[in-house]
Amino acid sequence: MAAMTELDNLRVVLVAARNPLNIGAAARAMSNFGVRPLRVVNPYELAFREARSAVGASELLAQAEEYDSLAEAVADCSLVVGTTVAGRRELQHPLYRLDQAGSTIKRQLAVGSVALLFGSERFGLSNEEMSHCHWMMRIPTREEHGSMNLGQAVAVCLYELVRGRKRSLPELKAKPEKPPAKSAEVERLTKVLFEVLTVSGYIKPRIVEGEEKLRRLVRRLNLNANDAEVLLGMLRQVAWKLRATENDSE
Amino acid sequence: MAAMTELDNLRVVLVAARNPLNIGAAARAMSNFGVRPLRVVNPYELAFREARSAVGASELLAQAEEYDSLAEAVADCSLVVGTTVAGRRELQHPLYRLDQAGSTIKRQLAVGSVALLFGSERFGLSNEEMSHCHWMMRIPTREEHGSMNLGQAVAVCLYELVRGRKRSLPELKAKPEKPPAKSAEVERLTKVLFEVLTVSGYIKPRIVEGEEKLRRLVRRLNLNANDAEVLLGMLRQVAWKLRATENDSE
Repeated sequence: MAAMTELDNLRVVLVAARNPLNIGAAARAMSNFGVRPLRVVNPYELAFREARSAVGASELLAQAEEYDSLAEAVADCSLVVGTTVAGRRELQHPLYRLDQAGSTIKRQLAVGSVALLFGSERFGLSNEEMSHCHWMMRIPTREEHGSMNLGQAVAVCLYELVRGRKRSLPELKAKPEKPPAKSAEVERLTKVLFEVLTVSGYIKPRIVEGEEKLRRLVRRLNLNANDAEVLLGMLRQVAWKLRATENDSE
Repeated sequence: MAAMTELDNLRVVLVAARNPLNIGAAARAMSNFGVRPLRVVNPYELAFREARSAVGASELLAQAEEYDSLAEAVADCSLVVGTTVAGRRELQHPLYRLDQAGSTIKRQLAVGSVALLFGSERFGLSNEEMSHCHWMMRIPTREEHGSMNLGQAVAVCLYELVRGRKRSLPELKAKPEKPPAKSAEVERLTKVLFEVLTVSGYIKPRIVEGEEKLRRLVRRLNLNANDAEVLLGMLRQVAWKLRATENDSE
């Protein structure tokens, strides 16, 4: 949380949502990505404070700020961005895809407060509500089925703003690769495998290309040192067992 | 939909989900982003086909493919990626952030099928389930509250894969040398190797982790389809020989 300072300037504003479970789900996503506060423009006086869907985010939900009007809810914001599923022809506003808009929003967060607006589940933002926005953005869903669940839409938008941050999760750098196996080890493995395959009858004696094919195959595995050692141990045991049972049966 | 051809190679696999509403919500997100089919590993025989949450996606949900085991659900996939909230220290697998993993997954989608695995709401993926994965990825949520709602997690992951796509961009991928082995083949190989190692005494009976370790090791080999077939043939011969000599000596 401490590292996500610009996100402190973000306000998620749910406008005229109808289902308390969706408000709770939005609160959960905000908590997941370290965003607060939640602002709710609540003309229907919905009882949402204890929505079960706010798993792990009950405090954030309890502290949600309730407003009578959208104008009040965005009063302290220097950029107001609305979300929509509509195409550009139906809009009076500039429209950007979320993945294009993300970097602009991030830049603005460094200098002032930004509000992200989500409209009601059924109708989205009204023309009046959109008129409070500087511009609109659209999650790149299919035209044939654009309308997302409200909680999912909030999650996706917040992810875009968190995405690509290096500092927030330093422990998640890609795991350092194990050192690769050295040739000597790979060759030992090849030899024991060759023996196992000969004793078991897979490779016929006196066919020389067998070993070369095998050598190329083993090298294509690109083993790390650890796995090479484990595989060598396995093959030695198999070789031992094959010899032991062979001798028994003679 | 027509432009999103590589997404046809993506399979979303929900493993042991407990809440039908979450399965429906996942179906809706898939429909929003133009991804199908949904695969459900359904040990609890959940009735999910008519979940109300699949708004606009009832057909996709009705056509979901049900499986008894995870192995069957990923059999045709050449890359299997698990999702987790765990930190790297708790995992046996390489772990990447979703925003790092996205481009790798997109490249794989151009050459073969990719499965995205989501575990149960409460516990995520088990160790056994993870052992079917090539690697794991994590949505960059806060450490203090990492666990997302299942439907929201699916939406965010699919958004990452759709993100940044410009319509009708010609494919510029370098051609892969050999197609990667599918999970079914890799799993067959694992099973025969397990048998060989048990008969030869390398793996002690009744030690369950043995098979999971082995499964992870075999997946780290990143076999192409050809080499997987050759290795399977070798192991079958070794298994046959071990059994034959065992019988002789009895």
